[in-house]
Amino acid sequence: MREFFYPKSVAVVGVSEKPTNLGRNIVGNLIEYGYQGIVYAVGPNGGVIETRRIYKSVLDIPDPVDLALALTPAPTVPAVLEDCGRKGIRWVIIETAGFREYNDGGRKLEEEIDRVAEKYGIRFVGPNCIGAINMENGLCLPFPRLHRFIKQGEVSMISQSGGVGMSVLNLMANEGLGLDKFVSMGNMQNVDAEDMLEYFIQDEGTGMVFLYLESIRDGRRLMEIARRSPKPILAFKSNIGRLGQKIAMSHTASLTSDDKVVDAAFHQAGILRVRDATTLGNSLKVLEMPPMKGGNLAVISRSGGHAVIAADACELSGFNLAHFPETFLREIEKHFRASVIRLTNPLDLGDLFDLDVYAQIVEKTLKLDGVDGVVFLHTSLSTAENQKSRQLLERLMALVEKYRKPVAYYISAAAQEIADLKQTYPFPIFTQVVETVRALEMSRYYDRQSALARLDEEIPAFEVDREPVRRLIDSARGEGRDLLLSEALEALERYGIPTVRSVSAGTVEEACQAADEIGYPVAVKIIAGQVSHKSDVGGVQLNLRNRPAVAAACEDMLARIHKAYPEARIDGVLVQPMITGGREMILGGRQDPQFGPVVVAGLGGIFVEIFDEAVVRVAPISRRVALEMVESLRGAQILKGARGHKPADIDALVDALLRLSQLMVDFPEIKELDLNPLRLFHEKDGCAALDARMILK
Amino acid sequence: MREFFYPKSVAVVGVSEKPTNLGRNIVGNLIEYGYQGIVYAVGPNGGVIETRRIYKSVLDIPDPVDLALALTPAPTVPAVLEDCGRKGIRWVIIETAGFREYNDGGRKLEEEIDRVAEKYGIRFVGPNCIGAINMENGLCLPFPRLHRFIKQGEVSMISQSGGVGMSVLNLMANEGLGLDKFVSMGNMQNVDAEDMLEYFIQDEGTGMVFLYLESIRDGRRLMEIARRSPKPILAFKSNIGRLGQKIAMSHTASLTSDDKVVDAAFHQAGILRVRDATTLGNSLKVLEMPPMKGGNLAVISRSGGHAVIAADACELSGFNLAHFPETFLREIEKHFRASVIRLTNPLDLGDLFDLDVYAQIVEKTLKLDGVDGVVFLHTSLSTAENQKSRQLLERLMALVEKYRKPVAYYISAAAQEIADLKQTYPFPIFTQVVETVRALEMSRYYDRQSALARLDEEIPAFEVDREPVRRLIDSARGEGRDLLLSEALEALERYGIPTVRSVSAGTVEEACQAADEIGYPVAVKIIAGQVSHKSDVGGVQLNLRNRPAVAAACEDMLARIHKAYPEARIDGVLVQPMITGGREMILGGRQDPQFGPVVVAGLGGIFVEIFDEAVVRVAPISRRVALEMVESLRGAQILKGARGHKPADIDALVDALLRLSQLMVDFPEIKELDLNPLRLFHEKDGCAALDARMILK
Repeated sequence: MREFFYPKSVAVVGVSEKPTNLGRNIVGNLIEYGYQGIVYAVGPNGGVIETRRIYKSVLDIPDPVDLALALTPAPTVPAVLEDCGRKGIRWVIIETAGFREYNDGGRKLEEEIDRVAEKYGIRFVGPNCIGAINMENGLCLPFPRLHRFIKQGEVSMISQSGGVGMSVLNLMANEGLGLDKFVSMGNMQNVDAEDMLEYFIQDEGTGMVFLYLESIRDGRRLMEIARRSPKPILAFKSNIGRLGQKIAMSHTASLTSDDKVVDAAFHQAGILRVRDATTLGNSLKVLEMPPMKGGNLAVISRSGGHAVIAADACELSGFNLAHFPETFLREIEKHFRASVIRLTNPLDLGDLFDLDVYAQIVEKTLKLDGVDGVVFLHTSLSTAENQKSRQLLERLMALVEKYRKPVAYYISAAAQEIADLKQTYPFPIFTQVVETVRALEMSRYYDRQSALARLDEEIPAFEVDREPVRRLIDSARGEGRDLLLSEALEALERYGIPTVRSVSAGTVEEACQAADEIGYPVAVKIIAGQVSHKSDVGGVQLNLRNRPAVAAACEDMLARIHKAYPEARIDGVLVQPMITGGREMILGGRQDPQFGPVVVAGLGGIFVEIFDEAVVRVAPISRRVALEMVESLRGAQILKGARGHKPADIDALVDALLRLSQLMVDFPEIKELDLNPLRLFHEKDGCAALDARMILK
Repeated sequence: MREFFYPKSVAVVGVSEKPTNLGRNIVGNLIEYGYQGIVYAVGPNGGVIETRRIYKSVLDIPDPVDLALALTPAPTVPAVLEDCGRKGIRWVIIETAGFREYNDGGRKLEEEIDRVAEKYGIRFVGPNCIGAINMENGLCLPFPRLHRFIKQGEVSMISQSGGVGMSVLNLMANEGLGLDKFVSMGNMQNVDAEDMLEYFIQDEGTGMVFLYLESIRDGRRLMEIARRSPKPILAFKSNIGRLGQKIAMSHTASLTSDDKVVDAAFHQAGILRVRDATTLGNSLKVLEMPPMKGGNLAVISRSGGHAVIAADACELSGFNLAHFPETFLREIEKHFRASVIRLTNPLDLGDLFDLDVYAQIVEKTLKLDGVDGVVFLHTSLSTAENQKSRQLLERLMALVEKYRKPVAYYISAAAQEIADLKQTYPFPIFTQVVETVRALEMSRYYDRQSALARLDEEIPAFEVDREPVRRLIDSARGEGRDLLLSEALEALERYGIPTVRSVSAGTVEEACQAADEIGYPVAVKIIAGQVSHKSDVGGVQLNLRNRPAVAAACEDMLARIHKAYPEARIDGVLVQPMITGGREMILGGRQDPQFGPVVVAGLGGIFVEIFDEAVVRVAPISRRVALEMVESLRGAQILKGARGHKPADIDALVDALLRLSQLMVDFPEIKELDLNPLRLFHEKDGCAALDARMILK
């Protein structure tokens, strides 16, 4: 990929003499950004632009070309690529739109392009993109005319959308953030975001990567690269729901993904996810500073009101207000003019107007062991203070370097002064109090989570009976059906996930005998491959207290099923003892199209139905992740025994989750698996799946 | 209050010749802002500043003074006020700090000030504030030196904190929002935020009010004024939790309030609450436009990526993407250069670069009946487009006026251009896509909710047995205790709230007889005034299936209570039939220190324990509000019969809530009332309180 960002020569294909021609903009951008290589203009009509010859084809160029850019009508692109191949060009950017994202004709063109690329070993970015920028060598290839508005820095950006990419460049410029490389990916037909990320995590000039994605090509690879990354990765993933799907498809041919899985995957891979541009700007800024290594914050404020707002924000962000020792407070008190402010954390600077003293106080605060970071809230009272405020800022920057703790600097001042500060100082300037605290929350989260993501955690490998499960699945697939209830429960047992004792019965009499043997009350459930939601059609009857009840239930059940599914083959019923006590959970797994096997855990019953509280993780999971899943449930407190509830057997739940994870990874044929309910008993009493549904691909 | 903002003359008390003197800043501010009245400088040492005589006392001023401002050390303030009184000044601002918010000495000074103010009929703002600004007449009284940085407009601000007020002024200036009046309230010892709001809602120059509050003095009055307000009211209420309490007390002597009640009260009164400065700026901006009258949004975007992000945001904000009729799409299609974009809503402008056409498309969109508002997402591709972008903006402004529908205009451009646009145009300029959509969500919410708040809704008045409840409460208070369980249930019955049949028993034998009569299984509950959480000490025994079980339970219960509360008087036990079926709810009421009686509803059991899902409203409530409470519960779907659950008797629940509301309003002596659980049965089957706890003041 290095050749792509550092070409010695570039051919821009699609240049004409017309003043509105977009290819001309690209040549102009390369000149404006000071590109250090040679640029060739190419266009079928030839001609001259600004004393520069337009070659009719790349084949006419006398010298070697490292990178070609195509911006010609879609139907001409295969031929352009063919010429590039013959010329020996191995890197191409196709900015032209009108391919797969547009219609079937475009899809066919893409296939042609694939053939040409393969024939010549060409790698290409796009189509339907706006190219790339490398601030190091002035390579600037977007077709809108750009002036050099952004400074060079360490952020590299991969954006599926050109327009969003441009607006993030604007945001970065306005926030004073520097760019190293930018690439817009478009349809990602050949080079995809994962390829590009792979390059960026080892690219020398890149210190931090930002991804804007509307779709994810290979989620597992993305996670794997992110986990190896020594550099922070931020991602804005849009196209999260129903309303965005259509436009995303016609914009970058993007398919939607399950947003809960995306969230989990980013979390597991240590990718910091942002959901709006404000948070993006604040995150990029805060990651320029040393991280929050703990949860204890000191707030120092020129305004008591901002101190109150910051304290509220600390509470919402899960920070503690660090304890200020009495000796520290007494030392600080000396600086104050009149004694009209009670000193505490947040520290209200009140009638203290000496900005030199502010820096002294911040330094003393940073020295405290119990302080992991500082929020400094500055209100510039008049333009007369600007010079002193800048000196203060410089001192704070030095203190951050010296103590390696973050000082999040908020300032309220006139817009012009703030814009100027952001341009001048390589240091984050925040302008909203709540966001300042939230930025440190992100710093804290990122510091912890990226370290966890990089751990090489052991994935437990249980000794299980894999073969019988293989046979169950193969035989069901052979018959073109999903697993029967009895088979699904057996598969779980083979993987060491406890299930309730279940006896299959082929006739009503067998069911009654089984019930007699098990002891009353019992539950009876239909076994039928084609009936996927058996409770909805009366296929589950609970609390049957005697033989006649069992017989009646079986007959009633068969009648109902026959009515609802006249075609369904009934394979019998399953008789189970009624299980009481414990708490209903659901566990599950499924194959995600982008991320492969995932596991799910939640409180059962109406919790999962209404509150949608289930937690997802990409499998396989470590013991720590399984425990984290349980801890993330909003009902975790109950399971742990809060408020007089008996603690549940969390070890058993974690064990079941780990085994489920192994099952999902071992058998990609399992499209969906639900253990609903899984009854979780009190500590040491284990758990048992009472019902299971296994859908095959 | 008009005299306060429009004085013909102002005395600034606390001016000296010292260059660092803050009183001098105030005189300077009045000159800079072009104050149209006469300014007198006053200070105990006399002297001259900038050719202006410093009077030693207001009594020395030869002419009448309408408004005095005190900025002298706290201990001197009572004497200053005395002089003001003798001079006949009736409006004073006390900017000095060091009163109640600081220490007990300060509290005593406040008492002295109160006496002087009462003696002379002086009304004062503060202490511990930074004064006021009136942009209409140049009255500018804050002690920091201000340059005229903000334009005149229609927003008036009441800020409890001076510093936050100043930063909001900065924010407004940066966003191009205009100010009419500003007042910082400080400790609100005399004039409070409610007084000021009362004035602003009828003040001619004020078109919109923003409140920043750290505490609420008289919540009911605030609600009542807001409901009468023909103007939008926005509020940022901080000091919402544990961490902010201490600093809020030492900043503006603010007590914390129950934030859920504040939220409910603002909602009921049609006050738009914001929780950070970004949202504040966006809300102020969006309220300058006509409101979103429905939920159907059109998104028109120059970038497909922004369109995707906006579509996601629409989904999160609860908007629909309006349907674009085929005829409309065909008409628009003509404008496009190459046909490479599929047209839909969001509309991707794609390769259409003619800004005139953009305006035509927006107009056609606004004409569609099914469109309630437009989000226009503009990415300025180069500075060369600035002029055309401005023309587009002007046309959009005219279209908003013409069609009376909002067009939320987002632009991505260089910081300088955006700052300039904000200064130049009296029209909101948004710079983040997600926030643009959220702003319209606020517009939609405000339009609906402020209309509802202004409705003069009927509060149902049920015929109830008030007198027996009065006697129960009086007799309990006479004995210095809360209501017994049996009495609390009786009070509910008197108010028409169904309770389970309950028989009091004084002895074990009586309990057994009662159980025999009721029929097994029964529940037995202790009746003891001093035992407030009876289940925690075994004071509730459920599912007793026969006489011996009842006897054993009673004895066990008495033994346990005697052990836990050796001093407690046991008044017997209550025997109730076991109730099965239906769903556990909790209803409740309490007296809020700022807002008076409130009612609470939630799903019972672990829902309320763990998920904290209860909904609060300030009483009394209308039938609509009671129903809204039920609808707001996250479990509302279940109650209404989703997913195969039988619908619950929501009418009965609403009726119980309304009666509870009446009870809470009738008896302010009731500090806390819990119906936990209230069993809510299936449709038409009503509900019944199984247990009740009534705590008196």
